[in-house]
Amino acid sequence: MDENSEVVLLGTFGSSSKRVELALKLKGIPFAYVEEDLKNKSDLLLRSNPVHQKVPVLLHDGRPICESLLILEYIEEYWSNAPKLLPEDPYTRSRIRFWADFYDQKVKRATYLVLQTKGKDQDKAREDLVEQLRVFEEGIQRDFPSKSPFFNGENLSFLGIVVGVSACNYQAFEEATGKISDRERNALFFSWADELKAHPFMSENLPPHDKLVAKMKT
Amino acid sequence: MDENSEVVLLGTFGSSSKRVELALKLKGIPFAYVEEDLKNKSDLLLRSNPVHQKVPVLLHDGRPICESLLILEYIEEYWSNAPKLLPEDPYTRSRIRFWADFYDQKVKRATYLVLQTKGKDQDKAREDLVEQLRVFEEGIQRDFPSKSPFFNGENLSFLGIVVGVSACNYQAFEEATGKISDRERNALFFSWADELKAHPFMSENLPPHDKLVAKMKT
Repeated sequence: MDENSEVVLLGTFGSSSKRVELALKLKGIPFAYVEEDLKNKSDLLLRSNPVHQKVPVLLHDGRPICESLLILEYIEEYWSNAPKLLPEDPYTRSRIRFWADFYDQKVKRATYLVLQTKGKDQDKAREDLVEQLRVFEEGIQRDFPSKSPFFNGENLSFLGIVVGVSACNYQAFEEATGKISDRERNALFFSWADELKAHPFMSENLPPHDKLVAKMKT
Repeated sequence: MDENSEVVLLGTFGSSSKRVELALKLKGIPFAYVEEDLKNKSDLLLRSNPVHQKVPVLLHDGRPICESLLILEYIEEYWSNAPKLLPEDPYTRSRIRFWADFYDQKVKRATYLVLQTKGKDQDKAREDLVEQLRVFEEGIQRDFPSKSPFFNGENLSFLGIVVGVSACNYQAFEEATGKISDRERNALFFSWADELKAHPFMSENLPPHDKLVAKMKT
């Protein structure tokens, strides 16, 4: 570990950039944060991620790492000292990566569709979100029957960061879309979100509620 | 490494299951291969991958690992002895994972669309494929200016397996879609595909051309 390395995070408020921010803070790695304006992307962002032109980008000694899940893997590998984000056991790692991918491909996508639709299309999108969360709940219970995969001892884990950064904002999502979710239909998921939200490291780092609601409404 | 562990691969002919097959063979891990019929999926497949119900699935001592890229990571981590699929350097690993994801999300998706369309839609899909391959070529050149990321010494690498398993079949793809690609427009990509195809390990493990053409036509 190079104590003098320069670490810069290009991100936006209320996005998966927060995953990277939390992982760096958890590992105790000093970094500079640059807020990007996605309507007027910086030359540095376009140069650093010419393929997807998206945040987050982590610049480590000037070299860009892209895609939030891959950045978390990089942080874990480069700063391999404790606290660990991932367990050692290859099988458990494979299941954690599986559910992180599922969360991004299915749950986050379904959430996005609810925000982007109205009327009957939105009702349909909401039903899909409930269903994806149900698959997620079932899978997490099946794969981690005895120990929460969202925490690593007292710290947040890889999956805790991945899921928590968006799940903890469910109240902003409800306010932005004008409807309270039926807690009964995804009771486990909401209990996990509340548990993650209550963790000091998460609660201290959540975006301001009103600002997030306003962003979700645009 | 447990020499007596039981390794079973559920796969289908001419799919990304071949990635897993090649990685296991490269590492010298004995395994049993079970060909799945996707029109009549086995109970074992449905039980092992209830979420996506897709191949490949690797069963290791009865425990399922899903998603081809995650299976390769698992194989690398569990059987961590040489030959290595990934380099040690975290930065290079992050770029290799980035391009493996890009290949699946963009190139393979574009290839699939060409196979699924006809007429003007197919012309459009072909143009998109050329463009995605161009982005891939540029990125690989930029990130790996001095050393091919497709080989690790004399062996195929992680990216060599990921890309090679589909790229080496470009002649079957051309025959199935009734049009020879313009080699000039993606000259680098075709030179890489030919290089991968000429590697004994790849050429010995490619699916039979005629059988693959027939499959692509369905």
